[in-house]
Amino acid sequence: MNDHRLFTTLDLAGTFAFAISGAVAARDRGLDWFGVVAIAFTVACGGGVLRDLCIGAVPPAGLTDWRYLAVAMAAALMTIAANTLVVRLAHPVILFDAIGLGLFAVTGAQKAMIFGHNAEVAVLLGIVTAVGGGLVRDVLLNRVPVILQREIYASAALVGASFEVVGERLGWLSSGRTWVALAACFALRYLSL
Amino acid sequence: MNDHRLFTTLDLAGTFAFAISGAVAARDRGLDWFGVVAIAFTVACGGGVLRDLCIGAVPPAGLTDWRYLAVAMAAALMTIAANTLVVRLAHPVILFDAIGLGLFAVTGAQKAMIFGHNAEVAVLLGIVTAVGGGLVRDVLLNRVPVILQREIYASAALVGASFEVVGERLGWLSSGRTWVALAACFALRYLSL
Amino acid sequence: MNDHRLFTTLDLAGTFAFAISGAVAARDRGLDWFGVVAIAFTVACGGGVLRDLCIGAVPPAGLTDWRYLAVAMAAALMTIAANTLVVRLAHPVILFDAIGLGLFAVTGAQKAMIFGHNAEVAVLLGIVTAVGGGLVRDVLLNRVPVILQREIYASAALVGASFEVVGERLGWLSSGRTWVALAACFALRYLSL
Repeated sequence: MNDHRLFTTLDLAGTFAFAISGAVAARDRGLDWFGVVAIAFTVACGGGVLRDLCIGAVPPAGLTDWRYLAVAMAAALMTIAANTLVVRLAHPVILFDAIGLGLFAVTGAQKAMIFGHNAEVAVLLGIVTAVGGGLVRDVLLNRVPVILQREIYASAALVGASFEVVGERLGWLSSGRTWVALAACFALRYLSL
Repeated sequence: MNDHRLFTTLDLAGTFAFAISGAVAARDRGLDWFGVVAIAFTVACGGGVLRDLCIGAVPPAGLTDWRYLAVAMAAALMTIAANTLVVRLAHPVILFDAIGLGLFAVTGAQKAMIFGHNAEVAVLLGIVTAVGGGLVRDVLLNRVPVILQREIYASAALVGASFEVVGERLGWLSSGRTWVALAACFALRYLSL
Repeated sequence: MNDHRLFTTLDLAGTFAFAISGAVAARDRGLDWFGVVAIAFTVACGGGVLRDLCIGAVPPAGLTDWRYLAVAMAAALMTIAANTLVVRLAHPVILFDAIGLGLFAVTGAQKAMIFGHNAEVAVLLGIVTAVGGGLVRDVLLNRVPVILQREIYASAALVGASFEVVGERLGWLSSGRTWVALAACFALRYLSL
C-alpha cells in the first residue's frame, strides 16, 4: 500500500472511531437521530478541519470528500441501530476515542509533512487533529474537556505524532513507523485508563 | 435584482437578525453596552467567518466589509434603546434566530457555490454559516447549544441549504429558488417551536 | 529597533504574559504538568492563530516559530517551579492577563496592517488577538468568559488597537504610537479592576 492510500485509509478509520465516540455521547444526551449524526460528523471531522485550516488546505477534506461524511453517517446509524452491539463493548466511547486519538495523531502529522511544513508544525498539528474532535465534542456538550482531567490524553497524541515525525526524518519505512506511532499512542492512552 | 445584490442583501438581513438575537441574549445576561455590541457582532458574523475560512475567502467578509459591523451595531443599539419595542415581540430571540437561520443557510450555500465548490461543501457550509453564530453565542454564554436540544435546528438549515443547492443544479431561477429555500428553512424551524 | 523586531519582541512578551495567565489558571484546576504546558500554549497562541487564519498567514506563526512554543513552555515551567514567586504577585492571572491584552491588541493590529489589510480589519483583529486566548482559556475551563462580565476588557483592547491603527494612519513614529497604545489598553484594563 503506498503512502497516500495508507494515509487515506487510516484517516477514514480515525473518522469512524471518533464518529462512534461522538454518536454514543450524543445518544446518551438524548439527542434525536439528526443530532446524533451531526455531532458524530462534527467530532469526527473537527480536528481535521482545524488542521486543514492551519495548513491552508481549503476547503478542508472533511467537507469536500464525501467519504468522510459517509463514514460518519454510517458510524452514527450503527450506533443508533445496533445499540445492543455497541453497548456490549465495555467502554465504547473511551475505546474508540483512544483508537481515533492514535490514528489522527499520526495522520495529522503526516498531512502537515506532505504539505511541506516543518517538524514542529507536524507534531503540533498531529496533536490538534487528535484532540480537536474530542475538544469540540466536550465544548458542545458543555462539559469539562477530557484533556483537562488528570489523564494521559494530549500527551499520548504528542508521543504518537513525535514518533511519526522523528521516524520520517530518520528515514524509517513509512508503514513501519506509522504502526509503531499508532500503537504507542493507543497503548499509552488506553493503558492509562 | 442580480445574484450578487440578492446575496448581499440577504446576508446583511441575516446579520441583522442574528445580531438582534445575540444582543437580546447578551442584555438578558446583564452585559454593559459594549458587551452587547461585541456579542451581537460575534453571533452575527461567527458563522460567516467560519464559512469564509473554510473556502479560503480571507480576510472574512464579516471583518473587511464595514456594512456587517454597522448592521450589527445598529441591531445592538436598537435592542438597548428600543427595549420596549423588542420586548413586545413575543419571543424575539427565537423569532430572529429562525429568520437568521434561513437567511444564512441560503447565503452560506450560495457563497460556497460562487467560489466554485461542490454540492457537499455548499450544503455543509450553508449549515455551518447558519448554526455557527448560534453555537458561538451558546458556547460563550456557557449554556448547552440550542442545536443539542430536541428541536429542529440544524436539520432546518440542511433543508434550506439543500433546496438552494439542488435548485441551482436543476437550473431554477435564482431568486425563485432562494425564496423557496428561505421559506422552507424558516417554516420548519419556526413551526417546530 | 526596527518595526519588525519591535513587533516580534512585543508579540513574544504578550505570549509570555498570556502563558503565565493560562498556566496559573490550569494549575489552580489541578492539571498535571503536561496539561499546564498545553493550556499555557493554547491560551498564549489561541488569539494569534485566529488572527493568522483570518489574514491567510498559514501556517500560523504560533505553530511554525519555535520561539512561541519555547516562551510558553518557559512560562508554564516557571509557574510550576517558582510557585512561591508567582503566588506573591497579588493577582497574577489578572495582572499578566492585562499586560498580554495590551501587547496582543497592538501586535494583532500591526500584523494585519503589515499584511496590507484595511483599518477595520486591523482594529477587529487586534481585538481578536487580544481576547482570543482568554476566551479559549475560559471556554476550555468551562466557565463564563471574562469578556462577558461587567468589566472593561474587549473595550480596552479596542482602545489599544485603535490607537495603533489611527497612529499609523496619522504617520506617528512607530515605537511611539506603540507604547502609547499599549499603555492606554493596559491602564484602562488594570484600573477598571
